[in-house]
Amino acid sequence: MRELTPDTITDAVLDQMATTPDPRLKTIMASAVKHLHAFAREVNLTPAEWIKGIEFMTAAGKMCSPERQEFILLSDTLGLSALVNGLHDATALEEATNTSLLGPFYREATPTLTAGSSIAKNPKPGSECVLYGRVTDATGKPVGNATVSIWQTGADGLYDIQASATSVDYRGVFSTDADGVYVLRTVKPLGYSIPMDGPVGTMVKAQARHGMRPAHIHFLVGAAGYRELVTALYLRDDPHLADDVVFGSSGDLAVDVIANDPDCPIKGMPSIRFDMRLSRESEADKTSGRVGADPSAIMKQAKGEPAPAG
Amino acid sequence: MRELTPDTITDAVLDQMATTPDPRLKTIMASAVKHLHAFAREVNLTPAEWIKGIEFMTAAGKMCSPERQEFILLSDTLGLSALVNGLHDATALEEATNTSLLGPFYREATPTLTAGSSIAKNPKPGSECVLYGRVTDATGKPVGNATVSIWQTGADGLYDIQASATSVDYRGVFSTDADGVYVLRTVKPLGYSIPMDGPVGTMVKAQARHGMRPAHIHFLVGAAGYRELVTALYLRDDPHLADDVVFGSSGDLAVDVIANDPDCPIKGMPSIRFDMRLSRESEADKTSGRVGADPSAIMKQAKGEPAPAG
Repeated sequence: MRELTPDTITDAVLDQMATTPDPRLKTIMASAVKHLHAFAREVNLTPAEWIKGIEFMTAAGKMCSPERQEFILLSDTLGLSALVNGLHDATALEEATNTSLLGPFYREATPTLTAGSSIAKNPKPGSECVLYGRVTDATGKPVGNATVSIWQTGADGLYDIQASATSVDYRGVFSTDADGVYVLRTVKPLGYSIPMDGPVGTMVKAQARHGMRPAHIHFLVGAAGYRELVTALYLRDDPHLADDVVFGSSGDLAVDVIANDPDCPIKGMPSIRFDMRLSRESEADKTSGRVGADPSAIMKQAKGEPAPAG
Repeated sequence: MRELTPDTITDAVLDQMATTPDPRLKTIMASAVKHLHAFAREVNLTPAEWIKGIEFMTAAGKMCSPERQEFILLSDTLGLSALVNGLHDATALEEATNTSLLGPFYREATPTLTAGSSIAKNPKPGSECVLYGRVTDATGKPVGNATVSIWQTGADGLYDIQASATSVDYRGVFSTDADGVYVLRTVKPLGYSIPMDGPVGTMVKAQARHGMRPAHIHFLVGAAGYRELVTALYLRDDPHLADDVVFGSSGDLAVDVIANDPDCPIKGMPSIRFDMRLSRESEADKTSGRVGADPSAIMKQAKGEPAPAG
C-alpha cells in the first residue's frame, strides 16, 4: 500500500469518498475536504493549533441550547452566513430586496397581531415609533395578505428571550393590507453586542473586534407564490453600520427615523419606513431553506427529534 | 457604506479581522475565512445545505462527552488529522518513525507495568501474543528509559472505555531497558468500526464508506531530549490496511505477526515486533502539541476548567 504523506492524503480522502451515491453530497464534501486540507497546508497547522480548534468546536457545541446557537454565531462572525445569503439572492427569479441575517433570535412562536398594534409591551416614554412599509412584487405591484414577522431588541438592547427563555416581547406577526402595507408600533431598536460569554466571543475579543451589531429590525416575509424573504432594516445613523460584527448590514438596507413623515399611517410619533420587494417563487425556492433557524428547532434536530414546521 | 455582495464579503471580513494583535492567529483566521468562503462559492452552498451543516456541527457537539470526541472523529474521517500529523513529521530535526493518529481512546490514566507484563486482563486462550521492539535515536543508537504508552482493542474489537467509562484493560505504560527494548504480552488486535451512532457515522454511511479501521496498536513514546512520538503499528494482513476510514494506516507502519521470531524476548507464542526511531527534540517541539487528546481533558477545557498536564 502507499505511504500517506501531506502530498498524497487529499487524494486518498477524495478516493475514499468517491463512493458517495448522492452527487450533490459528493460535490460538497469533495470541495470541503480540498479547502480544509489546503487551509491546513497553507498555514502549516501545528498539532497544538489543531487541538485548539477541536477544543473551540467542542466548547461551541457545549454552548448550544434551545436558547443559544453558537455555531450560527460563528458562521455569522466569519461572514459565511452573509455570503450564503448573497449567493441565495443571486438565484432569485426577479430582482428583490436583499436577504440579511435571520440571526439566532428568531422564534417559531410569535404572536399574530392586528395592524397598528404595538410589539413593545412596556415601551419607555418617548421611545416609541411607528414601523411601516409596503410589500410589493418585483414590478412594484402591492402584495396583499403577505405575512410579515418582525423581531428586534428592546430598550435594553436585548431580545426578549435573552431576558427569559419564555418571555415574548418586541416580536409579532402582521399581515399586509390590499395595498401591501403593514404597520405597527414599536420602539427604536438599539445596537448591541453579540453574546461575548462563549467561544465565539473569545474569538472576537482575540481579534480585537468590537462585537457590536448596528441597530436593526428583523423581517421574515412570506406570501403565496413568492420567494420567502429574510431580511432586516438598519438604522443609517448607527456608528457601527459599516462594521457590523456579523456582516448583516448593507447600504441597500439602511433607513432613517423620520420625525414627521406625511405618508405614515399613524401620526404623532417618529416613524421608520421599510418597503420590501418580493421575487416570484421558483420550484427550487420551495426547498432552498433559510440561513438561520430557531435554536430550539436545531436542538431537536441534533437530538434526532422531528423539527417543527417553519 | 458599501453594499455587501458575494464578491465583496470576503474582503470585508478580512478587513474587520485585520486588527488581530497576534500575528499567527491573524494568519490562521484569514486563511480559514478565505477557504471557507471559497468553498461556499465553489459549490454555491444553499441556505438549506448551510442549515444542515449547522445541525451537523450542533449534533457533533451534543455527542461530545468525557468518553467521546466527535470532532476528533470528524477530523480523522476527513483526513485532517493525518494531514496535520504529516505536516508535523516534516518539521522534525531528524528522520524518525512517522506519526499516526492518537485517536479518541488515549487516556491520561494508564497503569505503569513492568517489562513482560500482560496488558490483557482476561485474554482468550490462543489469542495472546508478544509485542516488543527497540526504540532508537535517528542514528540507530538505543534510547533507554523511554516511556512507551500502549493501548489497543481487546478480543471484542472494543477499547476498555467503550465497555465502561472506568474500566482499564488493553492499555499500559512500559519503559525501555538500556538496549532500548520494550516488551509486553497482549492479544492480537482486531480491526473495528469507528462509532457509527453519531453524526460522523451518519456522514460516513451517507458516503457509502465501510467505517472500518484496520487492526492496530497505539503508541505514545517519550524520552528526555527527544520529540514525543505518537504512532501506531498496523497489521499487514488486515483487509482494510489500504482504506482505513481515518487514514491512519500507512505502508511504513505495517508489521506482521510472526510465529517463531528467534529475536523475541519471550518464547512460546506469536509475536509482533515494532521498532521506533525518535528525532532529537527542537525548541519548537516543546510546545507543538499532539493531534489528539483524552476526551475528558477536552471537556474540561470546553467548560473552562484547567486541563490536566500531559
